[in-house]
Amino acid sequence: MTDWGNDSSSTSLRSSAEAADKESTRSGDFALYYDAHVFCCVNERPPKHRRGCCSGKGSRQLCDYMCRKAMVLGLRRVRINQSGCLNRCELGPTMVIYPEGVWYSYSCEADIDEILRCHVIGGGRVERLLLHPDEGPRH
Amino acid sequence: MTDWGNDSSSTSLRSSAEAADKESTRSGDFALYYDAHVFCCVNERPPKHRRGCCSGKGSRQLCDYMCRKAMVLGLRRVRINQSGCLNRCELGPTMVIYPEGVWYSYSCEADIDEILRCHVIGGGRVERLLLHPDEGPRH
Repeated sequence: MTDWGNDSSSTSLRSSAEAADKESTRSGDFALYYDAHVFCCVNERPPKHRRGCCSGKGSRQLCDYMCRKAMVLGLRRVRINQSGCLNRCELGPTMVIYPEGVWYSYSCEADIDEILRCHVIGGGRVERLLLHPDEGPRH
Repeated sequence: MTDWGNDSSSTSLRSSAEAADKESTRSGDFALYYDAHVFCCVNERPPKHRRGCCSGKGSRQLCDYMCRKAMVLGLRRVRINQSGCLNRCELGPTMVIYPEGVWYSYSCEADIDEILRCHVIGGGRVERLLLHPDEGPRH
């Protein structure tokens, strides 16, 4: 029988002690495979769905544009991926960039350009496009 | 005209100085939206493609299984997502878990169970399934 841990560890995943333990575990991990790993939600829902969807707001085309642009720029240790529903649909199109875990809402090629230039290449943040943790549905 | 940085910053993205700067920037970021964000590659290629594909090795069904299992376990701040090609096709099915940036190759529901129990809930690593950075194609 698989030991899935007690109820508290299942519903409230990371206590402070667990986080500290995870931090120490992480220090022994391998180097990152990608320096920046971008996931653009391309989830599609039926038209007029109450939550909307990123794909319906052009995310698929903008993700393709970001891929091409990253290639043109020679960003070898950067990966741009499509992803399934990131569940912040009302704020879309959304993307998340790891390992930072920084989220953006974007709507045009100029936004993508700025995210690549400022965040991915420059290591900064595009403040005007940032998503805050309290935006979107509760977990 | 957009300033995309010089050639060296484009081809070799993160120098030590840049990494240090990024680290300091990161400390001011928001809390993570998801404690653990799992991306399972579900890319599909034609049969007999020389690189193979994760979808052809059952990743879509196993990703669905992982979603259901995470829900049953009540892992509210954990997100399991499908993703496009993670480009480590020969080693698939592959998944990556952020913010740690830890990669696994898995092949059955028992592997998924162990990754959820040991890594996602327990904060450890499933050593036997880990992918090392030097496995897969060069960037």
